[in-house]
Amino acid sequence: MSTIDLNCDLGESFGPWEMGNDPAMIELATSVNIACGFHAGDADIMRKTVEMAKSHGVSVGAHPGYRDLHGFGRRPFPGMKSSEIENLIAYQIGALQAIAIAAGHRVTHVKAHGALSNVACEDDMTAQAIANAIKAVDPNLVFVVLANSRLVKAGEQANLPMVHEVFADRAYEDDGNLVSRRKPGAVLHDAKAIADRVVKMMQDGAVISATGKVIRMRMDTICIHGDTPGAVEIARGVRKALKENGIKVAPFKRAA
Amino acid sequence: MSTIDLNCDLGESFGPWEMGNDPAMIELATSVNIACGFHAGDADIMRKTVEMAKSHGVSVGAHPGYRDLHGFGRRPFPGMKSSEIENLIAYQIGALQAIAIAAGHRVTHVKAHGALSNVACEDDMTAQAIANAIKAVDPNLVFVVLANSRLVKAGEQANLPMVHEVFADRAYEDDGNLVSRRKPGAVLHDAKAIADRVVKMMQDGAVISATGKVIRMRMDTICIHGDTPGAVEIARGVRKALKENGIKVAPFKRAA
Amino acid sequence: MSTIDLNCDLGESFGPWEMGNDPAMIELATSVNIACGFHAGDADIMRKTVEMAKSHGVSVGAHPGYRDLHGFGRRPFPGMKSSEIENLIAYQIGALQAIAIAAGHRVTHVKAHGALSNVACEDDMTAQAIANAIKAVDPNLVFVVLANSRLVKAGEQANLPMVHEVFADRAYEDDGNLVSRRKPGAVLHDAKAIADRVVKMMQDGAVISATGKVIRMRMDTICIHGDTPGAVEIARGVRKALKENGIKVAPFKRAA
Amino acid sequence: MSTIDLNCDLGESFGPWEMGNDPAMIELATSVNIACGFHAGDADIMRKTVEMAKSHGVSVGAHPGYRDLHGFGRRPFPGMKSSEIENLIAYQIGALQAIAIAAGHRVTHVKAHGALSNVACEDDMTAQAIANAIKAVDPNLVFVVLANSRLVKAGEQANLPMVHEVFADRAYEDDGNLVSRRKPGAVLHDAKAIADRVVKMMQDGAVISATGKVIRMRMDTICIHGDTPGAVEIARGVRKALKENGIKVAPFKRAA
Repeated sequence: MSTIDLNCDLGESFGPWEMGNDPAMIELATSVNIACGFHAGDADIMRKTVEMAKSHGVSVGAHPGYRDLHGFGRRPFPGMKSSEIENLIAYQIGALQAIAIAAGHRVTHVKAHGALSNVACEDDMTAQAIANAIKAVDPNLVFVVLANSRLVKAGEQANLPMVHEVFADRAYEDDGNLVSRRKPGAVLHDAKAIADRVVKMMQDGAVISATGKVIRMRMDTICIHGDTPGAVEIARGVRKALKENGIKVAPFKRAA
Repeated sequence: MSTIDLNCDLGESFGPWEMGNDPAMIELATSVNIACGFHAGDADIMRKTVEMAKSHGVSVGAHPGYRDLHGFGRRPFPGMKSSEIENLIAYQIGALQAIAIAAGHRVTHVKAHGALSNVACEDDMTAQAIANAIKAVDPNLVFVVLANSRLVKAGEQANLPMVHEVFADRAYEDDGNLVSRRKPGAVLHDAKAIADRVVKMMQDGAVISATGKVIRMRMDTICIHGDTPGAVEIARGVRKALKENGIKVAPFKRAA
Repeated sequence: MSTIDLNCDLGESFGPWEMGNDPAMIELATSVNIACGFHAGDADIMRKTVEMAKSHGVSVGAHPGYRDLHGFGRRPFPGMKSSEIENLIAYQIGALQAIAIAAGHRVTHVKAHGALSNVACEDDMTAQAIANAIKAVDPNLVFVVLANSRLVKAGEQANLPMVHEVFADRAYEDDGNLVSRRKPGAVLHDAKAIADRVVKMMQDGAVISATGKVIRMRMDTICIHGDTPGAVEIARGVRKALKENGIKVAPFKRAA
Repeated sequence: MSTIDLNCDLGESFGPWEMGNDPAMIELATSVNIACGFHAGDADIMRKTVEMAKSHGVSVGAHPGYRDLHGFGRRPFPGMKSSEIENLIAYQIGALQAIAIAAGHRVTHVKAHGALSNVACEDDMTAQAIANAIKAVDPNLVFVVLANSRLVKAGEQANLPMVHEVFADRAYEDDGNLVSRRKPGAVLHDAKAIADRVVKMMQDGAVISATGKVIRMRMDTICIHGDTPGAVEIARGVRKALKENGIKVAPFKRAA
């Protein structure tokens, strides 16, 4: 029987502003990525989210993003140098590590957020800077990488344990990257279609691009979202469909 | 022969804006406190400052402040709850720890900055929140406390190793707290007078308040500033005067 | 027949984070106070909110707050000087004025937000700084002042047109100030009780403090909230009760 | 006798951090562009800078930039939509207008800062968004445009009064745009060479690109910098050389 992890971005509120439905999503995810205060989140929300993950036995990862709270880390920052990206990532990982330790939990993985991730998936310099930062802070941290992207190569070069990720609700380009959120059709919204697609992805070991191309890839974790309309329903549908098709949902194992 | 540590706040630049004269001060200090991005500093400056400290064999501490970049952490925030202060401190310590590890160095102490420190010196809740945050992140971190302040009691309750600090260039109230920077005479500027005063403090084991009161206190480290006019000259004068009077300048030993 | 304005704080979202239910509240309010980017809001949200107000024929006011996005402007900043408060207010008013002009509307009043308002209600320096800033930017701007507070005197000294405000859902101290949000019972939540209270306030020309004291005051506008649970229901109840009791709801007239 | 304006960016300090040498530059410039709080500056610095300009009889302009304090507005933000840029610009102009009014002065021109300007010089959407924002706030505001760039066309389409600008100390591409600061040789540092070049530019009515190409362009104002090493000396040299060569330095006239 095949097994898959479901990962979800949590802790993306800020100060008095709430985002997503963390209490519902923590029930559905087997690993969570916690915003670290740059694109979203703050020290109090990080603490609360780590505590929630701990009480549900869910592993936590750092979810670092660009320094762009106003744009939620979804705008590219082409002007950053490699060393600046490394420091950006190290800072955010460390902040979450300390919060996690204070809460009696620990950070086990890292997944880049939004535009930082999108850029890194296609740009070796950015991908390597992220991988190097993780390695420099703790080489045992698992690097969650978009399957088929430049992140994979960067993680290999840094000799980091990696988990390959696919998206349940995002359309794919023919090269295996995600369709930009700025393009129509980038995000899928039909819960049934998403659930069927995830099951087929798992059965085929491949995703189907927006143009119909079959792209084979390793899949260790599926990203489920909590901040889009109907997100919770979609995630429930995915989890149910996986179970009905004999696919076990469980935390990813650390893998080289 | 008595020994004293000289500590200095470094890394208080931000983005393109510089503050202080870090290259000069790193030659004079035996321990440095590095801003963690809330009242000053950013991930790049933290990295550069840690590397500078490492290359000079100087120990580094986290210098967390209120979330008030615009006010440089010098304005009190009376509205924060105990748990919020704990999270604020833990976040900043962790951020610097990761940057330090990435640079091949490590954080060995924590000293609160500006208004956060001033408030904590007189307010048990704040003092305890800081001590609890340090303990929760790493109980081996040395807590740098203003001698005679509420920080001492908070550090004792948290069972943290502590280093007692006096200020070379700040006037003291009769209760042993620093005179607020808002009051005239709060900061001394005459290099000769400051040097003489420091030697006398060391010889007497006491500071003299603005009104002339002798306040006996334990002294493990003297704070020297790098961001006031003539700061470097003052620090050089202090260091020279200590040496001439047979007082050794060396990093503080971790003490209970 | 007596007449009353209903004012509501709008535009308190930030970037991707939403707050309140602006589309519902704009139907119920006769004047709105728009966040100016310091405690909440941003240029895009300001524009959208001004356009919404314009299309509903509702007058707009600037709603400046402390520079504390993370704390939503609800934490006092005791360290600000008079001139700094003046500049803070002028900046925010101007920003909204330009956005309003670009949208074909205009700013007609100013109401301070959160902790800035709370502090000003009891502190003459802060109250005068706000009034002076308004006068310096445009002496025709109406100053919305909490009835019975220090804001009234400050507005008189600056010779500003003023509108006196009472709160529908906030408890009052015996001195006519609002009970701090940090105290239990500061915010009322029962829609029926709030509606009854507002009608009684209008009929009596007085509010009843938390201890039962009758405090007579001029009332030109009632503040209704959009960001608390059940806020829209409460506001609808207030509006309906006023109508049923023969009190007309209409925009305030500019008054000296 | 030909006449030229010398414009300089001022007010680029932030909170406690200083940048440039504003008191020296205000003596040399005939118009100044004041940072509006997004890439640099804050309400207090804006006020102080406006007052300085007023006392020197120097006209002030808004100098809006991207929302990127940490990067000083020098990093491009490719993800912004046209309407978002318009709102960004309107907000900043308005903020300075109110500060200027409060100080008894007024804003007469607008010049985009850093990456926002660089992007706009080559991107019609951004250029038009800036021009549209200025027009929407006040169509009498003079638009300072890099000579030969896309800003000229955008200003013409918006029917704004314009002033064409050349740079004393920046190298030019063959297409008349500035060489990116990321490239070597982008910024000239030799005071004598810069002064000679400016005189030649004025005599020829053309700049010489980095490759030697002569690019004829209208020149109404020369940008002089205050934040580079030797900036004040360079500006003094330019001003002196212009005078010695019979070119008058005076504020630009508003021109269609």
